[in-house]
Amino acid sequence: MNIFTPHLFRQQFPLIESHGNSLIEKGALVPSLVYFDNAATTQKPQRVIDCQQHYYQNINANVHRASHQLSTKATFAFEKARSLVQGFIGAKSVKEIIWTKGATESINIIVQSLARNTLLPGDEIALCVSEHHANIVPWQIVAEQTGAVIKVIPITDHGYLDIEQIDNIIGEKTKFVACAHISNVLGRINPIEQVIAKAKAVGAITIVDGSQAVAHLTIDVQSLDCDFYVFSAHKMYGPTGIGVLYGKRALLEKMSPYQAGGEMIKTVSFTQGTTFNSLPFKFEAGTPNIASVIAFAESISFLSPYLADASHAYKFFEQKLVQHCYQALANIEQVNFIAKGTPDIGVIAFTLTGHHNHDIAMSLDTEGIAIRSGHHCAMPLMTHLHIDGCLRVSLSAYNTIAEIDYFIACLKKILLEEPFSQSDEQAMKEELSGPSLKEMEDIITIFTKTKGWDSRHREIMLLGKKLPRLNKTLRNDNTLITGCESLAWLKSECSAQGIYSFTGDSDAKIIRGLLVIVLAALNNKTAEQIHQFNINDYFETLGLMQHLSPSRGNGVLAIVEKIRVLAQL
Amino acid sequence: MNIFTPHLFRQQFPLIESHGNSLIEKGALVPSLVYFDNAATTQKPQRVIDCQQHYYQNINANVHRASHQLSTKATFAFEKARSLVQGFIGAKSVKEIIWTKGATESINIIVQSLARNTLLPGDEIALCVSEHHANIVPWQIVAEQTGAVIKVIPITDHGYLDIEQIDNIIGEKTKFVACAHISNVLGRINPIEQVIAKAKAVGAITIVDGSQAVAHLTIDVQSLDCDFYVFSAHKMYGPTGIGVLYGKRALLEKMSPYQAGGEMIKTVSFTQGTTFNSLPFKFEAGTPNIASVIAFAESISFLSPYLADASHAYKFFEQKLVQHCYQALANIEQVNFIAKGTPDIGVIAFTLTGHHNHDIAMSLDTEGIAIRSGHHCAMPLMTHLHIDGCLRVSLSAYNTIAEIDYFIACLKKILLEEPFSQSDEQAMKEELSGPSLKEMEDIITIFTKTKGWDSRHREIMLLGKKLPRLNKTLRNDNTLITGCESLAWLKSECSAQGIYSFTGDSDAKIIRGLLVIVLAALNNKTAEQIHQFNINDYFETLGLMQHLSPSRGNGVLAIVEKIRVLAQL
Repeated sequence: MNIFTPHLFRQQFPLIESHGNSLIEKGALVPSLVYFDNAATTQKPQRVIDCQQHYYQNINANVHRASHQLSTKATFAFEKARSLVQGFIGAKSVKEIIWTKGATESINIIVQSLARNTLLPGDEIALCVSEHHANIVPWQIVAEQTGAVIKVIPITDHGYLDIEQIDNIIGEKTKFVACAHISNVLGRINPIEQVIAKAKAVGAITIVDGSQAVAHLTIDVQSLDCDFYVFSAHKMYGPTGIGVLYGKRALLEKMSPYQAGGEMIKTVSFTQGTTFNSLPFKFEAGTPNIASVIAFAESISFLSPYLADASHAYKFFEQKLVQHCYQALANIEQVNFIAKGTPDIGVIAFTLTGHHNHDIAMSLDTEGIAIRSGHHCAMPLMTHLHIDGCLRVSLSAYNTIAEIDYFIACLKKILLEEPFSQSDEQAMKEELSGPSLKEMEDIITIFTKTKGWDSRHREIMLLGKKLPRLNKTLRNDNTLITGCESLAWLKSECSAQGIYSFTGDSDAKIIRGLLVIVLAALNNKTAEQIHQFNINDYFETLGLMQHLSPSRGNGVLAIVEKIRVLAQL
Repeated sequence: MNIFTPHLFRQQFPLIESHGNSLIEKGALVPSLVYFDNAATTQKPQRVIDCQQHYYQNINANVHRASHQLSTKATFAFEKARSLVQGFIGAKSVKEIIWTKGATESINIIVQSLARNTLLPGDEIALCVSEHHANIVPWQIVAEQTGAVIKVIPITDHGYLDIEQIDNIIGEKTKFVACAHISNVLGRINPIEQVIAKAKAVGAITIVDGSQAVAHLTIDVQSLDCDFYVFSAHKMYGPTGIGVLYGKRALLEKMSPYQAGGEMIKTVSFTQGTTFNSLPFKFEAGTPNIASVIAFAESISFLSPYLADASHAYKFFEQKLVQHCYQALANIEQVNFIAKGTPDIGVIAFTLTGHHNHDIAMSLDTEGIAIRSGHHCAMPLMTHLHIDGCLRVSLSAYNTIAEIDYFIACLKKILLEEPFSQSDEQAMKEELSGPSLKEMEDIITIFTKTKGWDSRHREIMLLGKKLPRLNKTLRNDNTLITGCESLAWLKSECSAQGIYSFTGDSDAKIIRGLLVIVLAALNNKTAEQIHQFNINDYFETLGLMQHLSPSRGNGVLAIVEKIRVLAQL
């Protein structure tokens, strides 16, 4: 019998079970949630959730510092979790396992506690062009701090780190080589063994970002022989707020502490200075995220048997899902994959000719399908591919073939709608000669009559059509709104009486609609009125708060912030 | 009707309710747990635990970055939590509320992103002598990085920051003044208003560590007018792994980012550099601790009404507890309070003439009473007070008068036992002429026959009596074991055949007993045998693992580590 059975696996995830199963809507059987954003964060099995609850209800105490039983129990569970992680990635010693907030903090620790102290002007850092921002920006900062230089390893057409190019990039000046085991956009298992071998040949230190790998591959840091390996719990069925920095002991020993406080010290004195604790505690200042560490251990206990299973049923099922999804997408004419061939794990990125990523993601959302659109924290990769962003479907083993089929059917339905670039320009011309833009009262009337996200989304799209396009010359860097998933521009004028009027535009229909809604409220007002206007209450009134809370991501906040900046008090 | 009613408050804490209520033992009614370690971490009300569970079961998704509904819901709850914290401490804007791992990280951010970039050689940093290590060591590091100098504000006999001395400490050279609102050892509300006023007068930046204050006082950062205020959720009925950095917006704006990664950037480019996001996101790299942030909001909703209640029933009850406990302790002859007078909050620190803190804490633990012994992450304060450490009772509003009475009764019973300094030396002399130290097999026999932590603790104490005292001249810095809550010394000899023999000693009975247990296993062995010996299995066999897991705190790990270092391979 296989350890992994798809429906038994799925049953363990309460959010998927309660929201993801079919319901009757408009006479058809549809799922209320299809969660295809697993590369951002996975859902959690009940046993992980229960574990955290059990901790708080039974053994909650601060660790390491007390002689009482509750603290001893908490410490015992906390350190057992460390041993479990050690085993999970095949580290030599528990001293090599440092708890962090997540992969991002892990990389920042390496950069600031090691690279900052050792890099000299002209030294080189090699990164792959497809890295996540978390594996780029810390290096850019340390390069500025030390005078080191970043060299960029390109990717192949198939989305792999281009191993044939590394001899040109990694050389005697290279001191650090940092790359993802699997890119969060491309879903390809990079040839990191070869990268590590090359780095070692020139004496460079290697950092592998395993964030996207740990839920899918068996990791053995000793056989990889990398110097550092980093990952986050929340992408492998574990809780938020906890991750791991694995480092070879000799390197960790010579690194300076990162944060200072309790736990990481041996002795503290104002007159005789301070001495630091041994590994791993040297890097763990302050009360740790005890509950999450212990629940993380539970997620490892949950995941490990599937990864270790000799029948590979878990891995094969993941492969089956990705192949099914990739093939179905490949059969859609408008789909442009951002890399050639089937990805190695269930991360599929693409764009759609004639449709904005953001509009597609929002339309799919009205069907209950959660996919991601944007730059995926990999802007340099987007630049490299000459795109602003893309859509990303990311799968977990709790997803099903039926969910993929539903997603494909919905996508095809959306694609039947007129693409933006052609008819919308036309439609807008017609609108301009027709009824004028709505006032805020009209908008409130429309939305208070409309029920359900599906219908409200449709109204937003209709409103978008009413927005005249901004003259091309006005769509420039000055008018650009940063922080939107799509391009958006905003132009302001202020009358002698201090009344502001705004015009805006976007390449995404949904943002155009949101512009109409926001401008209806904030146009033709004084700076004071604009700043006093409560946009949250307005969205609440429109019934959009739960779908489009004015935070970033969907761009509403970016629009409102730009307006507030333009209307300076 | 009061909002606060002691028994209704207590009922909300499942760990206290399930473990803390009375049970019959040896014919007497005793609680199975009296939790008096609230300054280390508080227990969590059911609604906070439920909130985290609800998050994982219903709205778990990554925040800010996606257009799908689940992410919008998560983002909405996440940002609502920020507004709640803003209101809780009276901040001007949500942009001034930064999520961190806890108070320790908050301080490290201020130090590294502001102080490190602005301090010049000779500039001064003023700290109070009673600060927690988290508010000392980061400053020591930045002082070393910049050439700045730390000046120490003394305390009064009553344990308050000595406001009369600040004119001598805070002057024109002072650039930063950092002090605790309430010390975690002294429990006194420091006159921070006056400190802040003085700091402002000389243009210094003020940082208040509110870790011990937030569960007890109403905080208003605008009326305090401090530049920064930091605290952790887990000390105010919230989850572990989350805390707050409040900072005045103008200062936060000019600070450089701390960690780099996703979320804290606006644009990333290898060729055109990177631009950073606006506040608060500039300081929030990586996927945040979403579940804990949302549960933290629940703990604020739980706590706020009690603090705001005009009848002050919550605060008065806390006062009643501390006065009762202080008075009862004051009536015990051997008690030496480390500061004069009743503390302002339920944090009472003291030593006991003739008894080691560690022994008292361990003995109380066998009665189910959790108090803390040691330096409480405030070694400079201990040095200032000329003590190695002290005992600390820290109370919460879920504690009861009955629990305090039980604690006092147990303490009195323990104090009836012979103090260490007199008769134990005598007893040991007798033992030395009697049966010899036990072999490992004997120890296993003793402990496998013994049931319950109470009896095992007694056996450890009896074993301790068998350990001959180490000659006073041998109790020196070379033989000292660091990492114990008490002083302990270990001396090694190695024969020509490579066989190690160890002798040890401690000022705490419990550590003497543990030395006997550990030495029985590791004495007269080769270095290889010592390193191969599995101390965890041994403790498991003895039934001590759950009570004395070989981690730090109780000192076992420190002893074993010292032995391993001495027996070098």
